[in-house]
Amino acid sequence: MKVGDKHYRSLWADESGRSIHIIDQTRLPHVFETRALTSAEAVAEAIRGMRVRGAPLIGVAAAFGLAMAVAQDPSDQSISIASNLLRTTRPTAVNLAWAIGRMRERLATLPPAERGAAAWAEAQAIADEDVALNMAIGRHGLAVRRTLNILTHCNAGWIATVDWGTVTAPIFMAHDRGIPIHVWVDETRPRNQGLLTAWELAGHGIDHTLVVDNAGGHLMQRGLVDLVLVGADRVTRRGDVCNKIGTYLKALAARDNDIPFYATVPTPTIDWTIDNALKEIPIEERSDDEVRVVRGLDADGRFAEVKIAPGATPVANPAFDVTPAELVAGIITEKGIARANEAELLQFWPRTTESKAYLT
Amino acid sequence: MKVGDKHYRSLWADESGRSIHIIDQTRLPHVFETRALTSAEAVAEAIRGMRVRGAPLIGVAAAFGLAMAVAQDPSDQSISIASNLLRTTRPTAVNLAWAIGRMRERLATLPPAERGAAAWAEAQAIADEDVALNMAIGRHGLAVRRTLNILTHCNAGWIATVDWGTVTAPIFMAHDRGIPIHVWVDETRPRNQGLLTAWELAGHGIDHTLVVDNAGGHLMQRGLVDLVLVGADRVTRRGDVCNKIGTYLKALAARDNDIPFYATVPTPTIDWTIDNALKEIPIEERSDDEVRVVRGLDADGRFAEVKIAPGATPVANPAFDVTPAELVAGIITEKGIARANEAELLQFWPRTTESKAYLT
Repeated sequence: MKVGDKHYRSLWADESGRSIHIIDQTRLPHVFETRALTSAEAVAEAIRGMRVRGAPLIGVAAAFGLAMAVAQDPSDQSISIASNLLRTTRPTAVNLAWAIGRMRERLATLPPAERGAAAWAEAQAIADEDVALNMAIGRHGLAVRRTLNILTHCNAGWIATVDWGTVTAPIFMAHDRGIPIHVWVDETRPRNQGLLTAWELAGHGIDHTLVVDNAGGHLMQRGLVDLVLVGADRVTRRGDVCNKIGTYLKALAARDNDIPFYATVPTPTIDWTIDNALKEIPIEERSDDEVRVVRGLDADGRFAEVKIAPGATPVANPAFDVTPAELVAGIITEKGIARANEAELLQFWPRTTESKAYLT
Repeated sequence: MKVGDKHYRSLWADESGRSIHIIDQTRLPHVFETRALTSAEAVAEAIRGMRVRGAPLIGVAAAFGLAMAVAQDPSDQSISIASNLLRTTRPTAVNLAWAIGRMRERLATLPPAERGAAAWAEAQAIADEDVALNMAIGRHGLAVRRTLNILTHCNAGWIATVDWGTVTAPIFMAHDRGIPIHVWVDETRPRNQGLLTAWELAGHGIDHTLVVDNAGGHLMQRGLVDLVLVGADRVTRRGDVCNKIGTYLKALAARDNDIPFYATVPTPTIDWTIDNALKEIPIEERSDDEVRVVRGLDADGRFAEVKIAPGATPVANPAFDVTPAELVAGIITEKGIARANEAELLQFWPRTTESKAYLT
C-alpha cells in the first residue's frame, strides 16, 4: 500500500534471491525505516522483537527465514533446526506453524541440491498468495460492510500482511470506490498497534479517530459504531476467534448493543485441530516491560522511553484472548463469508495436499 | 492511609485555617509531594489539572475552595462567582455540585460576618464525614467480599477520598483482619490512575498485579477474578453507574463470566434527579493530549513525556461511561448494600435538610 506516494509491500525479496527487506514496525508511526534480513536467525530476531508482526506476515517471514537456512545448508538436520528456531518465536499465531509446515512438505521429497531454489520460490509463492488472499477478503468484506463507522482493535492492516491487510482490505477497497468510511482505532495497549493502523489509514486519506481501549463500549452505547472488524491469530473450526488481548471485551460490547462483530482472516488462519479454544490455544505471556515502559518520541523528536510503573510493581501481560463464537457474527475469508459455526466454516476445509499441514 | 510509615490524609486543612494541603496526584506513583492551596482559584486549578482527583475528594476540595473565597469576601456575589468557578472544573462527578450546594445552603442564612468561620467548619465537616463514610463502606463491603481475587478499574482508593477510599476501604480492612487478597489493577488509560491504586496497595503490603485495560475479560474467562469492585462518579436512583471510561466493558465481562460486579460509593454520589443515565449525565471529553502523550520517568528518574501518536492523528477522549443497572450486582454504601434498582436504593434517600441539595 502507499507510503507517501510510493507503493510498498510490508516485506519483499531482494533481487539477489538471498535476503528480504522488511519495514521495521517498531519504528512506526514515527519513522519509516526498512531493514535487510539475511539469515534465519535475523528473521527469528525480527519476529520475536516484533519488527515484523501480524499473524499473516510472520508466517511469510518465517518461510523466507527457512529458505535462507536451506540456502546455507539444505540438509534435513538444518531444516529441522531452522524450523524449530522460527516456530518458537511466537506461540499464538497458527500461521507460523502453517507456513513452516508447508515449506517442509515442499522440500521433503526433493534432493538437497534442488532445495535452495525450491524453498525460495515457495516462500515467494506464500507471499504472493497472501496478497491475493487479502484482496479477496477485501472483495468479500465489501459486501458485508453496509455501514460507515467501523471500530477495529490492534493492527490487521497491510503491514500485518504482505499487502492490503485483512481488516483493512475491505476498508481500502470501499474507500477507493468512494464509500465514506470512518474508523475508530483502538490504541491497543500495551504495544499500541492501533497507532500503526492510524498511520496506515492516514496514508490513504481515510477518516479515523484514535481512542483508548476503554472507550469502545461507550462509543457503541452512543450509536457511534456500525460494525466491529478485527483480524485473528487463530480461528477454530467452531468459530472461536483468538486475537489481540481486549478483542473479547469489544465483542461483548458489540453484542450488548446489537452491532455486528466480524473477524477477517485468510483461511490458513483457521486451525482445524482445536476443539476447545480456551483450553487448547496457548496464550503468549509477554514481557512485563511492555506494560511498565512506554515508547514514543521526546520533545526533540528522538525515540525515547518513559517508565510509567516502578520496576517493583508486579505485572501480568497476556497478549491474546479468545472471543467465543456466539459473539461473532461471521468470519470473512478470501473464499467468502461464513457464520461462526462448524457447519458453515467447513466450506473452507482445505482439500489440497499441502493443507494436510493443518492436521499434523 | 500509610505513606512509608506515616499516616496521611489525601487533603488536610492547615492549622492557620486559611489553606489546605494536598498530595499532588500528578506526581504519583513516582514522587510523593504535597502542595499548599490558598485560594479558590488554586483549588480550581488543582481539580482541573487532576492534582486532586476522585469524585469524593474533588467535592471536599471544592468545599474548602469555596471557604477560601468566603474568607476573602463573604458577599453573596463572591460566593456565587466562586461556586461557578469550582462547579465547572469537572462536569461528570455529582459530588462537586453536592458539596457546593451543601456549603451554600449552610451560608445562605448567615450574616456575612459569620460566614468565614462557618464555611471553614462546614468544609472540615464534609472532609471528616468522608472519612467516616469510607470506613462504613469498608465495613459493609467486608461482608460482600467472600472471595480473594478482586479486579478494580481506575483509582477509588484512599487518595481519591480524604482517607480509606471507597473500593479500597473493604480491601484495607479485610487485609488488616488477615484475609488474603489479591487485586488485579487495571492500568486505566489514558491517565493511568491504576498506577495510583498499585502505589496505595504496595504501601499497605497488599498483593496486586498491574494489567492493561484489555486484559480483564481474559482474566475473568480463565477464572482468575472472583469479584469486580469499582467506584463511581454518579450512581442514579435506578442503579446505573457512571464511572471511569472502560468500566462498562468490565461489567459486561463480569456478567458473561458470572462474576459479581459492585460499585462502592458514599450515598452523596447517588444522583436522585437523573432519569436516563445515558441521556442526562454529561460525559467529560478531555484533552486529546492525554491520549497522544504519556508521562513517566526517563532513564535518569526525571519526569518526562513521550508522544505516542503524531499531533495530526485525530483523537477522541471521553472520560466516563455508564454501566447499566442490569450489569450491577449491588451498590455498597456507608449505609449498607442495596441491589441496583430504585426500590432498594430508596432506603438511602436522604432525609436531612442539607440533602435537598440533591434535588435542586
